[in-house]
Amino acid sequence: MQDLPINSPIGIFDSGVGGLTVFKSIKELLPEENLLYFGDVARVPYGVKSPSLVKKYSFQITNYLVKRGIKALVVACNTSSSTSLEFLKKNFSIPILGVILPAVKEAISKTKDKKIGVIGTRTTIESGAYENLIKSFGKGIKILAKPAPLLVPLVEEGWIEEGVTRIVIRKYLSPIEKWGADTVILGCTHYPLLRKVIEEEFKRIKFVDSSKAVAQSLLKLLKKEKLEGGEGREEFLLTDKPEYYLPLFSFFLGREIKEIKLVKLEELDGQI
Amino acid sequence: MQDLPINSPIGIFDSGVGGLTVFKSIKELLPEENLLYFGDVARVPYGVKSPSLVKKYSFQITNYLVKRGIKALVVACNTSSSTSLEFLKKNFSIPILGVILPAVKEAISKTKDKKIGVIGTRTTIESGAYENLIKSFGKGIKILAKPAPLLVPLVEEGWIEEGVTRIVIRKYLSPIEKWGADTVILGCTHYPLLRKVIEEEFKRIKFVDSSKAVAQSLLKLLKKEKLEGGEGREEFLLTDKPEYYLPLFSFFLGREIKEIKLVKLEELDGQI
Repeated sequence: MQDLPINSPIGIFDSGVGGLTVFKSIKELLPEENLLYFGDVARVPYGVKSPSLVKKYSFQITNYLVKRGIKALVVACNTSSSTSLEFLKKNFSIPILGVILPAVKEAISKTKDKKIGVIGTRTTIESGAYENLIKSFGKGIKILAKPAPLLVPLVEEGWIEEGVTRIVIRKYLSPIEKWGADTVILGCTHYPLLRKVIEEEFKRIKFVDSSKAVAQSLLKLLKKEKLEGGEGREEFLLTDKPEYYLPLFSFFLGREIKEIKLVKLEELDGQI
Repeated sequence: MQDLPINSPIGIFDSGVGGLTVFKSIKELLPEENLLYFGDVARVPYGVKSPSLVKKYSFQITNYLVKRGIKALVVACNTSSSTSLEFLKKNFSIPILGVILPAVKEAISKTKDKKIGVIGTRTTIESGAYENLIKSFGKGIKILAKPAPLLVPLVEEGWIEEGVTRIVIRKYLSPIEKWGADTVILGCTHYPLLRKVIEEEFKRIKFVDSSKAVAQSLLKLLKKEKLEGGEGREEFLLTDKPEYYLPLFSFFLGREIKEIKLVKLEELDGQI
């Protein structure tokens, strides 16, 4: 750690483009930091893959980013965070943050009826990561966690405010509302893009997404470890067809992105 | 080729489980053949990946299946067929069939107004494979090809007859109907599971799916090459979490499937 210059970049990785919601929140809160975004679009989505496979991919990417000299890592992917965070922390010495714990802490602080709902990808929900952390940090709080796999392809199709998207949202969230949740965690990095529509459909529920919470955690961590510093540079890396994703990056970040670099899968040679 | 026993299996590969619609049609027409199904669910979906990456994965899988001693190969994945078929034919000596040409020939024989529509994944449509083949084999026929990316996740969620699925189908197919197509190719192996609902929504259009057409082409090929023979055995291989997929296999095939074997990605070592 002590060998790394203070202006080394912070790595942010995701299975695809959804982690850009986390990138955006970090950029807003820490504009001077140098940021290195990595999206594994060649192997997206992680949410339907086995935990052992997600762990392997997460390890390869972390290994690559560590070789590139990052001073800290944010695992922006919920599926990776829920299956691989402890494993990554054991194997690498840089500070590593996931997206699950910050969201859980915020949800616990918000719920009054002590009933928290969670939606996410199938693998995230089946990992039990949200349930386990809510049980550890929020004694007596009840949890209902449900997979909502269609929301990611709807966002990627750009159907944000379409009627069909509202129907799908109601199908997934109505059972959680009926069960009595007053607070719901949006446990996938794509969901913040649907937040406005979700809030319109479920006005009495408080929603939590982890992008802002994780940026706050990162700020605290950098202060504590005395790692702050940079020139506000940014770099975007993808494992497949970077030109194709330029418009989607601009859509997620709300400004024009002009360059994304390709990292071939062959360059990710780290083995568990 | 002459070294292979006549009862060697026929390989059928797909990026995931959709190719089971092709497997089922082949099994019905050629019940005595031994069939070896390979689904690359660790890297599904191919439909959003670059042609070069799809080509690489298709090569690796074909190489693996050839080492396992298949006597012929059906590329059941539309995305692989549209990007990689000629490349595979150049690199391997066994007979290889794709799903595009049989569907194109059937659609050309059915259209009266000389207007054919096509829906498929983004990569399949952008490859131009359907348009090129229709232009080659059906002089003067007009084509409108559109991506329909949400249909695959809807099928995999099991929402076959849901209202929301009907809305999505209408959104994708109405512009093709208005344009005047009397025949539409369902250019993705998942779509036959939606065929009943699609036909109910668009009663005046004739739909073509390639699973039955490719089974007929395979029958002709086996006769011509004198490769017929087997004991009706079947084997299923997947690159990730086989137990998880058992119910989905049973759903696609309409009967209980009890065993799927795992092939680790590390075993796919063929390099282009």
